[in-house]
Amino acid sequence: MKFFFEPKGVALIGATPKPHTGGHSLLTNLTLGYDGPICPVNPRYHEILGLRCYPEVTAVPNPVDLAIIFVPAPAVPAVLEQCAARGIPGVIIESGGFAEVGPEGRALQERCLEIARRGGIRIWGPNCMGLIDSRKRYVFSFLSPDAWQDNLNPGGVSLIVQSGLLAGGFMTTLMSHKILRLAKACSIGNKCDVDETDLLEFFLDDEETKVIAMYVESFPRGRRFFELASQRRKPIVVLKGGKSAAGARAAASHTASLAGNQALVRGALDQAGVYQADDFFELVDLARTLEKGFERTAPPAGKPRVVVFTFSGAAGIVTADHLEASGLALAELSPATRERLEKWSPSWMPVNNPVDFWPAMEKHGPEITYREGLAALLEDPEVDAIIVHLFAGFGVWFLDAEKLFHGLNKTPKPVLFWVMGHEQGYQPLRLALEEMGFPAFNEIQRVVQVLAGIFEFRAGGESPAVPKGCADPEIFQALKIRTEAFREPVLDEGESKKLLRELGLKVVPEIPAEDLSGVLAAAQEFGYPVVLKGRSPGLVHKTEAGLIRLDLHTPEQLQAAFREMAGGPNMPVSYLVQPQLKGDVELIAGIVRDPQFGPAVMLGIGGVRAEVYRDVVFRLAPVTRRDVEEMVSKLKGRALLEGFRGTTPVDLDLLADWLIRLGELSWRVDAVQEIDVNPLLVVQGEPIAVDASIVLR
Amino acid sequence: MKFFFEPKGVALIGATPKPHTGGHSLLTNLTLGYDGPICPVNPRYHEILGLRCYPEVTAVPNPVDLAIIFVPAPAVPAVLEQCAARGIPGVIIESGGFAEVGPEGRALQERCLEIARRGGIRIWGPNCMGLIDSRKRYVFSFLSPDAWQDNLNPGGVSLIVQSGLLAGGFMTTLMSHKILRLAKACSIGNKCDVDETDLLEFFLDDEETKVIAMYVESFPRGRRFFELASQRRKPIVVLKGGKSAAGARAAASHTASLAGNQALVRGALDQAGVYQADDFFELVDLARTLEKGFERTAPPAGKPRVVVFTFSGAAGIVTADHLEASGLALAELSPATRERLEKWSPSWMPVNNPVDFWPAMEKHGPEITYREGLAALLEDPEVDAIIVHLFAGFGVWFLDAEKLFHGLNKTPKPVLFWVMGHEQGYQPLRLALEEMGFPAFNEIQRVVQVLAGIFEFRAGGESPAVPKGCADPEIFQALKIRTEAFREPVLDEGESKKLLRELGLKVVPEIPAEDLSGVLAAAQEFGYPVVLKGRSPGLVHKTEAGLIRLDLHTPEQLQAAFREMAGGPNMPVSYLVQPQLKGDVELIAGIVRDPQFGPAVMLGIGGVRAEVYRDVVFRLAPVTRRDVEEMVSKLKGRALLEGFRGTTPVDLDLLADWLIRLGELSWRVDAVQEIDVNPLLVVQGEPIAVDASIVLR
Repeated sequence: MKFFFEPKGVALIGATPKPHTGGHSLLTNLTLGYDGPICPVNPRYHEILGLRCYPEVTAVPNPVDLAIIFVPAPAVPAVLEQCAARGIPGVIIESGGFAEVGPEGRALQERCLEIARRGGIRIWGPNCMGLIDSRKRYVFSFLSPDAWQDNLNPGGVSLIVQSGLLAGGFMTTLMSHKILRLAKACSIGNKCDVDETDLLEFFLDDEETKVIAMYVESFPRGRRFFELASQRRKPIVVLKGGKSAAGARAAASHTASLAGNQALVRGALDQAGVYQADDFFELVDLARTLEKGFERTAPPAGKPRVVVFTFSGAAGIVTADHLEASGLALAELSPATRERLEKWSPSWMPVNNPVDFWPAMEKHGPEITYREGLAALLEDPEVDAIIVHLFAGFGVWFLDAEKLFHGLNKTPKPVLFWVMGHEQGYQPLRLALEEMGFPAFNEIQRVVQVLAGIFEFRAGGESPAVPKGCADPEIFQALKIRTEAFREPVLDEGESKKLLRELGLKVVPEIPAEDLSGVLAAAQEFGYPVVLKGRSPGLVHKTEAGLIRLDLHTPEQLQAAFREMAGGPNMPVSYLVQPQLKGDVELIAGIVRDPQFGPAVMLGIGGVRAEVYRDVVFRLAPVTRRDVEEMVSKLKGRALLEGFRGTTPVDLDLLADWLIRLGELSWRVDAVQEIDVNPLLVVQGEPIAVDASIVLR
Repeated sequence: MKFFFEPKGVALIGATPKPHTGGHSLLTNLTLGYDGPICPVNPRYHEILGLRCYPEVTAVPNPVDLAIIFVPAPAVPAVLEQCAARGIPGVIIESGGFAEVGPEGRALQERCLEIARRGGIRIWGPNCMGLIDSRKRYVFSFLSPDAWQDNLNPGGVSLIVQSGLLAGGFMTTLMSHKILRLAKACSIGNKCDVDETDLLEFFLDDEETKVIAMYVESFPRGRRFFELASQRRKPIVVLKGGKSAAGARAAASHTASLAGNQALVRGALDQAGVYQADDFFELVDLARTLEKGFERTAPPAGKPRVVVFTFSGAAGIVTADHLEASGLALAELSPATRERLEKWSPSWMPVNNPVDFWPAMEKHGPEITYREGLAALLEDPEVDAIIVHLFAGFGVWFLDAEKLFHGLNKTPKPVLFWVMGHEQGYQPLRLALEEMGFPAFNEIQRVVQVLAGIFEFRAGGESPAVPKGCADPEIFQALKIRTEAFREPVLDEGESKKLLRELGLKVVPEIPAEDLSGVLAAAQEFGYPVVLKGRSPGLVHKTEAGLIRLDLHTPEQLQAAFREMAGGPNMPVSYLVQPQLKGDVELIAGIVRDPQFGPAVMLGIGGVRAEVYRDVVFRLAPVTRRDVEEMVSKLKGRALLEGFRGTTPVDLDLLADWLIRLGELSWRVDAVQEIDVNPLLVVQGEPIAVDASIVLR
């Protein structure tokens, strides 16, 4: 990948002297920063911008390991052949007209890829805007020179954007408004070869990159991405486009990429410790805050404790509202801090959190107020982070951040600023704060959202090795052989539960029966109440088909239920009788295979209503005990598992055993495509499968 | 109230010639805009800023009907006495040091209020920044003149802010950044007399005010506010501070105001058609969009159908994601529109929604692309609103909004812009769009959130008259007498259900019993299975106390349950036996009384898990049939009521009857403080109370 970022020489195929064209901007940009040989290629010119121009790339004498192509799409394959002949290892295709425009373009893109593979070329693009290196001032992009020339703001965030046009607009905006301190910015367009996973791998080793931020619509190599991200070597922030059904349709038609199951992708990224955003500037706000390198010291068991330091009671109240909604807590100040602040604030002002600093301001002026107030809060061990509200002022009242906050930026605790004010004061104050290492925001909800975001993961997370395995490897060998023997893709309840039992998991006992007398005998054996189920091969939704009758307390009730079922529209071929278990909560558990991320485990609040509240969490298989704890903690209805209203809490060891074994099965036995255990009933704390279905590949 | 906004003459008590003080700014601001007599009052000066200065307000000869007070808090009562003596009807107290600083300040504030009441004075404030009238250039505030002088941006939004300091900073920010076109801005601080309800009433009749936006922490006259808002004469947008438990604490300590039950306040404002925001700039963004006066034509039954008109596939995808998350739909373009766009777009580009206009741009240039593309979409009857994405450009590429969008602003459909770009292009384009009547935003999530917000209510909502009443008025008379006769405040289940039965509501039958033989006889009468409940006066949480045993199928089970209960730690004084009903969904219904808004009705998804998902909706009593329909539609689990997985849908007539009667009871019978019906079980579509408790005042 190094030839893309530090090429020994660059050939530009499609260079032109015509102003206001991409080919002209590309060449101009190269001359404004790139320090190696620049070789324009265009048969119509001998010289462009004072540089010798070559008729084709094979004629270039200099050392060239990067070619940038900006010629019409149909001409690209021939150019690529020449690059292959010239032995150029890296090619950025910035032209559009490929997969994004339909089947013909897709075929053209496939042809290019084939030529590249044959010739040992890595392709970047097509339909992209190339890359920018802020420190080196390398701009390998058709972006207008005016958009970046005076605006590079070098820093530690490297940005990856999957899209054609957006990247340029977005970067122009970020640079000219001085929103983000960029290390490198990459527009990878249709990413037919070089993708976000390649770049992630590169940036994890890139010394200039402290934080990696990206917009992507798919993860074609999701599993590899997950493994790299799970190393947690640098903060990674992802905005995933195509979350909605509608969004996924747009993604498919536009970038021809497969958008995965959103809940699964979210779970996988959570598991890997990847920060997630829902909008472009939110992505940037999270990344620029993570770039500051704050340490997060929240107590492992509790919510991060935040102080709000404000000039306005109303703004303090609104901030407290957002903190609560985002799962953060208002810190309880320690007695020592309270004492310090009582000396600092006028006596009539009670010291609370939010800390209203205005009364102190009237007493001491800004310098003492900010420095002493913030120092007291930063030193408080009960405080994990601070949100400071500032009114920027203007003219004689302008706040001098250097003077007021000097020294405070040595703190490892996150200190985030919410700034409002007259435009003459706002922008200089914001930039001064950023320069000192404090991120500043102009909306309360965003500052709280970002603060909640950076506390989402702690540094040095557990790396997801394959767990030792609770189950004997021989079991999986046996299950492999068993599953391969099935001829039907869908196993019915009886077969599914048998397989789970073999895996060492607890399922409700059952007795199969062929007729009424068998059914009655089975019930006799279990004792009433019982459940009667009808077996009908290939039928998964038994409730709707009338093939489940619960809570049958007498032989008469059982007999009536049998007659109704046997005489109903979906006559079963045989029956299952089970004891009626009484549980405290119905869970749903299962496994699925994602085409991009591979096998994954699901846990949710289950029963017939699982679809209504959609309270489910995914993690990629194999899962660890810690993964299971995180899954439980992410459920909205987790209170139901924790001993809700006098019930026995779920035994977390047993639940973890369930999910770890399911995960291991999906990891080791390829033939299993999907498993649904619903309900996984919790009886006296113990999860027991009451119904299950397994789909084979 | 008119003397506050159009005074015949203004006295300023606390005027001073010292620069950089509030008293000096106040006087300067008056001289810069106010066109009536200005009378500074300060015994230390004879003249300030060339104006004759008086030693006290009684000495002022001119016609004066407004006094602005800016002297230290302890001196205010004496000044107020003089205002009373002078017969001044309106006083704005901008000084701080009152209820916001603790008990002493609160006492001082009470004294001021008493003097005012006696003297026939309306007080505005204290602890406030007064008011601004953008059109008249009246600034009755200690805001620095530099903050507003060149920045007034007259328009149709009137703003009310409950807070001391924030108001000034907020207004300075809004004005200098040209974010909001203001009619009048009011900072009402501690609102000891003039409050948001007074101002709402005034602005509903104010010709210059098209939209009313406010930040408040409490609604001391909530019921009157609700009645005024319910007239739906102008859009009203509210940001309510103090939503969280923590926020409410901050509210109580800061402005000493009672923050109501948040879910109830949200329900009441929804019911009145009040738009709600969660942050300051969100409030402003909603207000400035509503000011444009778009018509909202969404089909009554469906989701508003939105087109995204974009230069970037990626931005289109992210917008589609946000649309789905916000309950809006991507419009399906009509065949006619599709045909028009197919002519306009190059042939290789499939026409979809989001509509990618870039290919057309390359073919036709911007003018034809925007005008023809947007015209086609605006004329499509399948489209309710449009989100346009623009890259502002800069230099030679700058977009000229006047030229491109001229004429399109005649459309009544909402057209909202998301704009990004180089700072040189961004701000001029944003302002030009705003000038033309199109709101512009810089975050996708905000533009979608605002669009969803403006579709929340349709114009001309039903006014909430007291419903004719399903129940006979005599019943309420009888219930009134009955409830007043109770001596204990908490009615147990038996008494509570009896009262509900008298109200005409269906409750589960029950037979009281004193001992085991009575219990067995009762079960015999109903037939098994039955439910056994223990009665224990004053005890509300029967489940935790072990006083409910469900699903008893035989005399043996009943006997065992009886013995356990009788021998348990909460021995009941007597028993209730009920048949075990089998229902499809457990609801919760009830009434509460809010100290600010009065009686309210609640509906939610119930059972023991009601507290876990907190899926409840409030409406103020009395409620109408339409209110009940809205309540159902706001439940996250509403699918459970609509015939979920083969169950019978809830009979909406019967459910409405329940809530209307409960509401009428709370409206007519003051003695009833709270009712909880949980579960309200839906059996074959019919709601039946299985348990209930009533608390009297």
